[in-house]
Amino acid sequence: MTVETPGVGLLGYAFMGRAHAHALITLGHMTGPPPIRPRLVSVAGRDEARRAEFAVRFGFERAVEGWQEVVDDPDVEIVENLLPNNLHAEPVIAAARAGKHVLCEKPLALDAAEARAMLAAAEDAGVVHMCAFNYRFVPAVRRARDMIEAGELGDIHHFRGVYRQSWGADPSREGVWRFDAAQAGGGALGDLATHVIDMSRYLVGDVESVAAEVATFVPGRTVDDAAAAAVRFAGGAVGTIEATRFATGNLNRFTWEVNGSKGSLAFDLERPAELVVGGTRTLVNPDGWWPPGHVLGWEHTFVFELRRFLDAVAGRGSVAPHGATFADGVRASEVADAIVVSAREGRRVSLPA
Amino acid sequence: MTVETPGVGLLGYAFMGRAHAHALITLGHMTGPPPIRPRLVSVAGRDEARRAEFAVRFGFERAVEGWQEVVDDPDVEIVENLLPNNLHAEPVIAAARAGKHVLCEKPLALDAAEARAMLAAAEDAGVVHMCAFNYRFVPAVRRARDMIEAGELGDIHHFRGVYRQSWGADPSREGVWRFDAAQAGGGALGDLATHVIDMSRYLVGDVESVAAEVATFVPGRTVDDAAAAAVRFAGGAVGTIEATRFATGNLNRFTWEVNGSKGSLAFDLERPAELVVGGTRTLVNPDGWWPPGHVLGWEHTFVFELRRFLDAVAGRGSVAPHGATFADGVRASEVADAIVVSAREGRRVSLPA
Amino acid sequence: MTVETPGVGLLGYAFMGRAHAHALITLGHMTGPPPIRPRLVSVAGRDEARRAEFAVRFGFERAVEGWQEVVDDPDVEIVENLLPNNLHAEPVIAAARAGKHVLCEKPLALDAAEARAMLAAAEDAGVVHMCAFNYRFVPAVRRARDMIEAGELGDIHHFRGVYRQSWGADPSREGVWRFDAAQAGGGALGDLATHVIDMSRYLVGDVESVAAEVATFVPGRTVDDAAAAAVRFAGGAVGTIEATRFATGNLNRFTWEVNGSKGSLAFDLERPAELVVGGTRTLVNPDGWWPPGHVLGWEHTFVFELRRFLDAVAGRGSVAPHGATFADGVRASEVADAIVVSAREGRRVSLPA
Amino acid sequence: MTVETPGVGLLGYAFMGRAHAHALITLGHMTGPPPIRPRLVSVAGRDEARRAEFAVRFGFERAVEGWQEVVDDPDVEIVENLLPNNLHAEPVIAAARAGKHVLCEKPLALDAAEARAMLAAAEDAGVVHMCAFNYRFVPAVRRARDMIEAGELGDIHHFRGVYRQSWGADPSREGVWRFDAAQAGGGALGDLATHVIDMSRYLVGDVESVAAEVATFVPGRTVDDAAAAAVRFAGGAVGTIEATRFATGNLNRFTWEVNGSKGSLAFDLERPAELVVGGTRTLVNPDGWWPPGHVLGWEHTFVFELRRFLDAVAGRGSVAPHGATFADGVRASEVADAIVVSAREGRRVSLPA
Repeated sequence: MTVETPGVGLLGYAFMGRAHAHALITLGHMTGPPPIRPRLVSVAGRDEARRAEFAVRFGFERAVEGWQEVVDDPDVEIVENLLPNNLHAEPVIAAARAGKHVLCEKPLALDAAEARAMLAAAEDAGVVHMCAFNYRFVPAVRRARDMIEAGELGDIHHFRGVYRQSWGADPSREGVWRFDAAQAGGGALGDLATHVIDMSRYLVGDVESVAAEVATFVPGRTVDDAAAAAVRFAGGAVGTIEATRFATGNLNRFTWEVNGSKGSLAFDLERPAELVVGGTRTLVNPDGWWPPGHVLGWEHTFVFELRRFLDAVAGRGSVAPHGATFADGVRASEVADAIVVSAREGRRVSLPA
Repeated sequence: MTVETPGVGLLGYAFMGRAHAHALITLGHMTGPPPIRPRLVSVAGRDEARRAEFAVRFGFERAVEGWQEVVDDPDVEIVENLLPNNLHAEPVIAAARAGKHVLCEKPLALDAAEARAMLAAAEDAGVVHMCAFNYRFVPAVRRARDMIEAGELGDIHHFRGVYRQSWGADPSREGVWRFDAAQAGGGALGDLATHVIDMSRYLVGDVESVAAEVATFVPGRTVDDAAAAAVRFAGGAVGTIEATRFATGNLNRFTWEVNGSKGSLAFDLERPAELVVGGTRTLVNPDGWWPPGHVLGWEHTFVFELRRFLDAVAGRGSVAPHGATFADGVRASEVADAIVVSAREGRRVSLPA
Repeated sequence: MTVETPGVGLLGYAFMGRAHAHALITLGHMTGPPPIRPRLVSVAGRDEARRAEFAVRFGFERAVEGWQEVVDDPDVEIVENLLPNNLHAEPVIAAARAGKHVLCEKPLALDAAEARAMLAAAEDAGVVHMCAFNYRFVPAVRRARDMIEAGELGDIHHFRGVYRQSWGADPSREGVWRFDAAQAGGGALGDLATHVIDMSRYLVGDVESVAAEVATFVPGRTVDDAAAAAVRFAGGAVGTIEATRFATGNLNRFTWEVNGSKGSLAFDLERPAELVVGGTRTLVNPDGWWPPGHVLGWEHTFVFELRRFLDAVAGRGSVAPHGATFADGVRASEVADAIVVSAREGRRVSLPA
Repeated sequence: MTVETPGVGLLGYAFMGRAHAHALITLGHMTGPPPIRPRLVSVAGRDEARRAEFAVRFGFERAVEGWQEVVDDPDVEIVENLLPNNLHAEPVIAAARAGKHVLCEKPLALDAAEARAMLAAAEDAGVVHMCAFNYRFVPAVRRARDMIEAGELGDIHHFRGVYRQSWGADPSREGVWRFDAAQAGGGALGDLATHVIDMSRYLVGDVESVAAEVATFVPGRTVDDAAAAAVRFAGGAVGTIEATRFATGNLNRFTWEVNGSKGSLAFDLERPAELVVGGTRTLVNPDGWWPPGHVLGWEHTFVFELRRFLDAVAGRGSVAPHGATFADGVRASEVADAIVVSAREGRRVSLPA
């Protein structure tokens, strides 16, 4: 039994750093065959004590200050960019040019133009690229996609997705980078609505046009607090896409529904193991994990996502269609940008085909 | 104990006729004081056998063919118009001019212009008028309104309402008047979305603008099958309003949510006795009916609605704010018309203040 | 169209009096054919003002003080006994001997011996008799029974039923007759557990044995506050029957589940329009009422129950198997008595076959 | 930062082997401080290829055939016994006598007598011992326990717990050791009801008596398929404990409710991140893991359980009260044995104080 050990470098050691590192370790013993045990080469981050502690805790060989060191590291074959949104493009483009395979957290960039530059760099370099829309990798979501693709829902008439969080008014969160347009690009739109946009595309196909409202409830804040759009899909469905950080009482409640001519599906991220099929709550476990009814949680999305990415790196299939590539990241940014334009100009904005 | 016996005439003996007649009888013994026992004077409808059977069954004194006979009947003080939408305006205007108090089913008219004529006629005549948005009279909805009005939810940031039915593709329903633009005006928009519009206005205040999509899924059909709008409210909230007859698997699922700075509410018409307050399912029973936990159903909305109307006729309070007047009916039609214009012209449509 | 007008006399004008009177009126216009419009002849009750007000409100011809007057009334063909439990037997036996058809609220009597005397009197007199276990007449319950009877669930392995109320510790309720053993017989056992017992028998067949605990939480109280039993059914199923007035936060939550070899069912009385079939929430509406999705409530059980009773009186079918007769009332009392004996003597108690 | 590396040996590489090994790896980077990175010394199992593959996959140093080799291994400080129930006692007693700390899967033994021998051996040897009732370590369960202990629920009146699985009739499962009395001891009783018993004890205190039914639905099977008991607790509460492998449609649905004088709690293992507090669904995440709303799953119980065990081994607190010791394992077996006796002899069985 030969174990693959691709060298991975992480940019960022915070929330996403822990989620990815835990997933990289987990996939080594919980997924496959064939076995992959990623070599945790290097993690980059500003605070010396924190990055050192992270490296010891998760078993990285080196902890460095800047992303450039990771990109330059000959032992690193794969760079995962988990930094704030304004630090997505430059390191990713540099890594791609250095021939590293690149995974980047969502939203791919501050706007679609920047995202397109990242895609071009990755394609020019011929490296594997993934935009980390991890909710595609909820087993219940994958089941939904498979059902729709197999025609079990018939013609799709509606998608409605709402991502509800509630920390937008929490004074203790003031000052986080997600509230700063320079670092984050958008607010709920970039952070949450892009998840909804990507999910809608994954399940029912491309977005054709948006007619939207965007709101900032806290005076002086430079990012949006909420966005809502009436949406038309290329396949003929209509629906809504909505995201907010002001849904009091909801922690992380991303719900979506699909209505087709033969059936309906519904999902709630706070109950990630469940897919409601025509009113029936079904528990969805992936093959080869625990017996049905022993539910997985939020963190497992990263395990499946990174497994797909590493399989693609190893030449076993591609990131698409079940993983999001940079092209999907570009499209999500284009739709998000269109929502901004629609809200500002008071008109329906059509997306290029 | 003096019992009031206002004379009532019904136009229509079908689904709505049964609901109203049952409610008129029920309110006589289940509501008050003071006691009201409506005198069921006359019911009008085209089919002689059906109207006769209806009159015997519910105890109406007379069954007549045309609405004019009801309007002309000196024993009738109150006319309830339960006919298809294209037959709303003329009988109501005639009744108002004849000095009858008028209740009309929703949507008030085929469009806002017609609705405004009805409002003008009623106001000119000085009669009591009500547009039968009966879901205002779900006890859980009234509780929600009271909580919002008392400030228990703080500033309102979001309303999202979706009315899901599923009979739009049912071949056995082809040919019903609701699919004929000449009789119905709109499809899901007039029939269902107006309920959502009125509910949003009742709970969070007036609609300021809409950015919408309207869809007809069945080729050749003259009415819409679904509508979706991103909405901005005069009070600063944003949200979505949606209605469809293509939500497979859903019978009559009108759900809405309100997010305020201090709390959130949620409701599902298929569970009408429940108001979800900040995640807690609470059972709401009206005072003076059964003990809490012995739930009421859909039909009771008509009892409370008609009690309010009859109280207003008797000079005990007005229809508004808890009942919808013709002015509310006009506004719902204006918003529905704005959704049509927005979808057709691809622009945000603002409502007059 | 001939309308039947059987003469009805009610004993009691309180909670149950209102529920029955409202149902008698409702069934006149909402059920059939053939049409029945019960003649509301007489209502008996101690408080003169209250009984007079009740008679006016619901349209009874006479209001009298004692049950004997109702039993003696030649216009009364049917006597409904809605009095406290200690006043069930004597009026019912007298009414039966006077040739009246008799309906009695549950539990049928203070104990099984008294219940058997009532059954004997009714059978000797050849009158129609019903014990008002109204939850058999929830449309979702009837659907469940039909499914089980048709074999759709296969062999039945389990029934578990729990009736949860929470007013047992409410100081404002101290002194009500339900807390007095002399008037009520038992506490949660007679009031609530008999509903569970009858439901289990209606759905899965007769009870073979019980192994039980009974508890009184409030010192000095003469009735039980809660009861729980492990139960074996004649058909081979095992399960639990439980009732309590100390389930804080629950108003009227009677839930039951049935597991069969081919499927499972679940029900919650606080959502009476829903039957959960194998995990799918299905809305159950009776034929001829409103379209599916327009849900009925708690009070409608009385409409269907009384319709069945009046049909049986008119010779259209019998009370059983869908309505409970006095024989079912006897059996429920026998099982309740067995629970008391089991708890007191610390042994499994078998019921006679 | 010194990292502890206690040497662990596993007996068994199947379902539980994977769950424990994954948890041992996970706790190394996801819990603490202080950091513990267990040294995975040895795994024992009959099939050579499977144990070798397991060792490579999870990183164990050695794979051996028999449990004795693990017990004898000087590098092993901790033995986890994950074998079938009939192989619990001997290896655990040998390990304890060899001075190893011992964790054993539930039920602790084939019966209470055997369990008591295991407890005696562990106590005599002075080693740390744990019976792996992992559902104590669901964060929502811990929250419930803390609330009850703090008096937030007032006096406890009721516990009702039901463990529902449905594979009992699955012909493809015939022949598994869990259906063989010689290997498993009991059926649903030992496998599932012991979880319910332990949970009831953890939440509301010790069991005083049981009045029970036990059933075997499949002719010729040597273990029970289901058990149900009416239970009295030492603290005065009454309730039910039930477990079955014949709850068609349910995969792993262990639900429990607690009713206290001040409030109620409810839980469903198929939604392990949720605790229903007085009707409100609350999401419970442990400190230091992901932000609230990013739910954990079933497997995490093992992480928290093993962390507690390893902390106790390192002298940081004891297994009890939040982890179950062998004494708790003994008590669960005593209650399970009492259920068998009660069902067989038709009498209430009291537990020794």
